[in-house]
Amino acid sequence: MLRRIRVGDPSAASHSPGAIPGTRRRDFLRQSALLASSALGVRAIAAPGSVSAPRSENLPPNTPRWMKVQGEPVVSAPYGVPSRYEADVIRRATNITPTLWSSWSFTPLQDLHGIITPNGLVFERHHAGTPDINPEEHRLMVHGLVSQPLIFTIEDLVRLPSISRIHFLECSGNGLTEWKAPKEKTVQGTHGLLSCCEWTGVPLSTILDEVGFKPQAKWILAEGADAAAMSRSIPIEKALDDALLIYAQNGEMLRPEQGYPLRLLLPGFEGNMSVKWLRRLKLGEKPFMTREETSKYTDLIGNGTARQFTFVMEAKSVITFPSGGHQLKKRGPYRISGLAWSGRGRIRRVDVSTDGGRNWREARLEEPILTKALVRFRLAWNWDGGPAVLQSRAIDETGYVQPTRDQIVAVRGTNSVYHYNAIQSWQITQNGEVNNVHA
Amino acid sequence: MLRRIRVGDPSAASHSPGAIPGTRRRDFLRQSALLASSALGVRAIAAPGSVSAPRSENLPPNTPRWMKVQGEPVVSAPYGVPSRYEADVIRRATNITPTLWSSWSFTPLQDLHGIITPNGLVFERHHAGTPDINPEEHRLMVHGLVSQPLIFTIEDLVRLPSISRIHFLECSGNGLTEWKAPKEKTVQGTHGLLSCCEWTGVPLSTILDEVGFKPQAKWILAEGADAAAMSRSIPIEKALDDALLIYAQNGEMLRPEQGYPLRLLLPGFEGNMSVKWLRRLKLGEKPFMTREETSKYTDLIGNGTARQFTFVMEAKSVITFPSGGHQLKKRGPYRISGLAWSGRGRIRRVDVSTDGGRNWREARLEEPILTKALVRFRLAWNWDGGPAVLQSRAIDETGYVQPTRDQIVAVRGTNSVYHYNAIQSWQITQNGEVNNVHA
Repeated sequence: MLRRIRVGDPSAASHSPGAIPGTRRRDFLRQSALLASSALGVRAIAAPGSVSAPRSENLPPNTPRWMKVQGEPVVSAPYGVPSRYEADVIRRATNITPTLWSSWSFTPLQDLHGIITPNGLVFERHHAGTPDINPEEHRLMVHGLVSQPLIFTIEDLVRLPSISRIHFLECSGNGLTEWKAPKEKTVQGTHGLLSCCEWTGVPLSTILDEVGFKPQAKWILAEGADAAAMSRSIPIEKALDDALLIYAQNGEMLRPEQGYPLRLLLPGFEGNMSVKWLRRLKLGEKPFMTREETSKYTDLIGNGTARQFTFVMEAKSVITFPSGGHQLKKRGPYRISGLAWSGRGRIRRVDVSTDGGRNWREARLEEPILTKALVRFRLAWNWDGGPAVLQSRAIDETGYVQPTRDQIVAVRGTNSVYHYNAIQSWQITQNGEVNNVHA
Repeated sequence: MLRRIRVGDPSAASHSPGAIPGTRRRDFLRQSALLASSALGVRAIAAPGSVSAPRSENLPPNTPRWMKVQGEPVVSAPYGVPSRYEADVIRRATNITPTLWSSWSFTPLQDLHGIITPNGLVFERHHAGTPDINPEEHRLMVHGLVSQPLIFTIEDLVRLPSISRIHFLECSGNGLTEWKAPKEKTVQGTHGLLSCCEWTGVPLSTILDEVGFKPQAKWILAEGADAAAMSRSIPIEKALDDALLIYAQNGEMLRPEQGYPLRLLLPGFEGNMSVKWLRRLKLGEKPFMTREETSKYTDLIGNGTARQFTFVMEAKSVITFPSGGHQLKKRGPYRISGLAWSGRGRIRRVDVSTDGGRNWREARLEEPILTKALVRFRLAWNWDGGPAVLQSRAIDETGYVQPTRDQIVAVRGTNSVYHYNAIQSWQITQNGEVNNVHA
């Protein structure tokens, strides 16, 4: 019979996710794990005579109930779904848009591990909802200042030379609630307009070579097939650099809300420029001054002027454990974990402070460290039970250092909506609550 | 108004996925894509006066119907699902097991892109179905030849130092139908017991350090909490090398059919050893000779003897486009694409033959090339319309070369079930059918 012997204060220990063995690692484990008697009458490896289902009468009385019955057969779900015990790990909407048609939903970063975002949890930002597109009817037209305008089917595009890349995608409005005061309670709310996938598609440069773009072509209008005809102007330099026409994410075809059957991907640029449901590319001499780059997606500066065409998502990072809404149950060793990314290339370093920015320690970065992709960082921390303020600071390969809140406000004021990439502060109170603060 | 002008033979071209522009790239595109008139009355970027939904009366008559209505609002699916047009991209079961409780289902490799397998399509292999485990009740016991037996909760494990790695997972029975004759019609059937995910968890070595394993401990029994109590013996060298206790795959918690809430992962070893629903690790002096390593998972050789404990999945590769069941509609340029992997480390090179192995060309490998992970390879090919036999051959960083079918049969005979890693041949007939053959 299995016996569980509690040692120390396991009721506290067993509810503090993220606590880790540090210098007192063995002691910690001794205290927090449940000890097994070494004289256990352990379960037989295979009940004699049984083929797959052990006979209940031969089992120890504390055998888990799921070992006493056959489970679900294969292909119960030909396309699988998460455990019913993970029902809270979902995208969540905002309450600050008048409707959910032109709105967004957030990725639950506090529940994720590693760098890949599973397709079911990739954040959404739509301007007129997700269209239901039949891929056999969908077309991409490329025209304007070209030698030969062309219309492509999805089958045409899939047969072209393709590449696969892991890149983050971030809405330029990620963190927009945080300019004036710390508003959102969780990292899903403060940073959840952020995801990272393996994307497969055709380099846009391949298409531009084929249509024969003219020397005076400097900008490309990208238009979506949603009811908003979501449109942005793309500089030709980006189009010829690393822009992709994407039809697959994380191995399978794009999800409807991610642009099925075709989207643009501009690695490192603000998310809305990676136009979804892509139906048209028009080459021209000047930016097209679409609705989305006049009424929206400009940055109002403190002096009343605005920055336009602020494409690149600058280096940023955030601690996802512990983060807002978590509850530390006891002092002792913890493992801080978070994400860093830069629209300009690779992350070079992430520093972590536990005292509101006075002292910094370098975190461990998980390989592979890819360009314009999320990087997972981890660092051991011993919480002494007193107040603390956790911060992370990303440095990218260009030497750019993620700014403090004071630094970004000094340059930008607090009237902007987009491109808020200040250092995030999580306050740990003496009772172990984790709160979003400006520090 | 958009006009579509067909040139050449588009009815053929638009149904040949994978065809690519090669040396006659521009000609190919000219022929296969639909030409757009340069005098199009193209759709206005934004209909004046509209906020998000353009007014139908202002739209050109051929505007796609999904641009005339608002789409689905955000969080229509808090956990997203694929497009209804991708309903055929699913796991499929085998018809050679008596039940679906001890059986397997295959990943649709012919429909996948890149190297990541989305969680909903990761292959299954169960011995008594998928148990429905409450993670709060699940425990991992570590005992046997240790100084201090311990029982861990999932919360205990999540708080330990963790790492994330991208690794393939392959059933040792992948290809078992192909020993004697080419049986399965598609690459899903011949190679679909294969997937690749980003896995997050705790190094097993961390746990072993904590329990203080004794010097005479050479093997570890790993036991699952399914009704089969699926059990295997793990050599301690592997446990101390790169074995992981996994709780997350592709960012989120493990799927039920992948071992939720805890599985072992032995990178590069046959899949069944990465015991799912892991509940117990017992350290001992010798292998435990469980049912799964006596009645199953040994390799019967031609002379009647059997190889036991054949852990490593040797280097292997397969072309996924074109592959069995595909139909080439016309001669001309195509893009061959496939996957390569090795249980011993990184893939160094993949060669492709289109004439049944007489001549070989080196394929392009997609970065990043990770150890014990899938690698995507791609190569241009011009089909002259005659019969062809496509093959791929993987070479790993140890210098191991994937064997031909004749080579593996000479050593192993044809009585084995497991570890079939011969070069796969896809025959292209003169009418463009793609068939599984032994060549």
